[in-house]
Amino acid sequence: MKNYALSFALAILPFSVQAGETPKSPSEILEQSKPNEWREINPDNLLVNTLSDGTQFIVYINDFMPKVHSSNIKKLSNSHWFDKANIVRVQDNYVVQWGREEGTPIPQNVVKQPPAEYIFPSKDYKFKPLKYRDAYASQVGFVNSWAVASDGKDLWLPHCYSTVGVGRDMSPDVGTGQELYVVIGHSPRHLDRNITSVGRIIEGMENLSARKRGSGQMGFYEKDGEKIAFKSVILASQLPENERPKFEILDSNSKSFDAYINARANRGGPFFIKPAGAVDICNSLPPVRKVSK
Amino acid sequence: MKNYALSFALAILPFSVQAGETPKSPSEILEQSKPNEWREINPDNLLVNTLSDGTQFIVYINDFMPKVHSSNIKKLSNSHWFDKANIVRVQDNYVVQWGREEGTPIPQNVVKQPPAEYIFPSKDYKFKPLKYRDAYASQVGFVNSWAVASDGKDLWLPHCYSTVGVGRDMSPDVGTGQELYVVIGHSPRHLDRNITSVGRIIEGMENLSARKRGSGQMGFYEKDGEKIAFKSVILASQLPENERPKFEILDSNSKSFDAYINARANRGGPFFIKPAGAVDICNSLPPVRKVSK
Repeated sequence: MKNYALSFALAILPFSVQAGETPKSPSEILEQSKPNEWREINPDNLLVNTLSDGTQFIVYINDFMPKVHSSNIKKLSNSHWFDKANIVRVQDNYVVQWGREEGTPIPQNVVKQPPAEYIFPSKDYKFKPLKYRDAYASQVGFVNSWAVASDGKDLWLPHCYSTVGVGRDMSPDVGTGQELYVVIGHSPRHLDRNITSVGRIIEGMENLSARKRGSGQMGFYEKDGEKIAFKSVILASQLPENERPKFEILDSNSKSFDAYINARANRGGPFFIKPAGAVDICNSLPPVRKVSK
Repeated sequence: MKNYALSFALAILPFSVQAGETPKSPSEILEQSKPNEWREINPDNLLVNTLSDGTQFIVYINDFMPKVHSSNIKKLSNSHWFDKANIVRVQDNYVVQWGREEGTPIPQNVVKQPPAEYIFPSKDYKFKPLKYRDAYASQVGFVNSWAVASDGKDLWLPHCYSTVGVGRDMSPDVGTGQELYVVIGHSPRHLDRNITSVGRIIEGMENLSARKRGSGQMGFYEKDGEKIAFKSVILASQLPENERPKFEILDSNSKSFDAYINARANRGGPFFIKPAGAVDICNSLPPVRKVSK
């Protein structure tokens, strides 16, 4: 059984591995990657959320695909609008949602009726395919270190664990960005192309995913004591230089990224006996690392 | 956009839907299903876990595929061995794990070195395919209301959110069943065929998934106060008849099951504008309902 699994693993490895050589683990590949394979994340795309209990989570905003929604979120943040937000909903195996009371006025410069930023023309982006199948899209892959799905004509951002999206009312409403949610369960890909994805949480997921599930329908916090208040929401670029959290993301066009994905698809070492020979897009999110200040 | 989405939806709907008729939602289909499409879950396959804080979770044991491991878990439970277990590990986007201190003696009748129950010959089971792609297996589907994956020759149980598996040491160790875990994040399908899956949690997932993540490496609870003690673990069949929780599962060979999967793959109604036209196996777990006593 073990020998069979091993020879199978070697057969599908696209990189040359000598007999008897243990393939590197995903974390070993990251450790041995070159500094120039990592790109600094622009502090203007890092939304630092601090909750009233002192815990934090950081959203990496995608500013080049859902441009209007991302811009709205930055404007709301710069107006300190989110400082008075609450976590209003925690539904198991689904989402944590936050925002302010419906009807709270929003700043003048926020676009009230943004376009639907659900899909993006493939021709406008440099798409790098992941070579494995996807249950939902004809192809999946990466654009500029963001996971994407594609039908050949259009691209879209898939709903994965840690994906941040824009809450909205019934269609054709697309939401402004004043109500946000994050995925905390198995990836609900049926939301793809139906809601605007604006980013992913790269630090502090556990400060959302481990929250008490709400007592109301769809996990809404119905009782007064249930809601969790925010303390502040600010772009890292608005913090003094020495207080900014700094992150890097592995370039999805780098060699180490290819090796990392390959290692995740073909786990080796003493624990695994049967490499999957594949990995799905939500298990392929480009790795992020914190940089000491 | 909306018209295009709708015509696309109609094109792939295998059921006849009249123009203008709103397709039923997954929950409407369950509500309108017939009583004889549901099967009572054998109380001998329901493991009722009560934690020291009074919360519960219930594991539906698969007793016909990983037979030796399932039998071991029942023996451990019947010997009240698990009553002194602790939750020892909570790793975000991965697993919650529980068991007793390593080296704790186990009852004589527990098989100490079970066979690897990772794969099962396809020819021994009646496999019903799910018609959508899978990133990891050449085919996915159902056997007797359990989600399964397949390479044509063998079947195995996929690691989905809520899947319960048997913790083990390095290969070739396969674990006895005295250390268990449940998936609390995006489905880690690379564990398929590498660990024995023994069931799924059908009630009380939130009493595990919302636990504080562990401070140690891999989410282990390292500090004394972190661990969470169990109070009792008992098979429903061992409880007095009037205290037994009762559950039914929708027969994966029923018409309502087909309609339910179809509705999950092609969400309609006023919220969705673009049905996915597909659903993955971990978003297709056969629905379970509690029956009032």
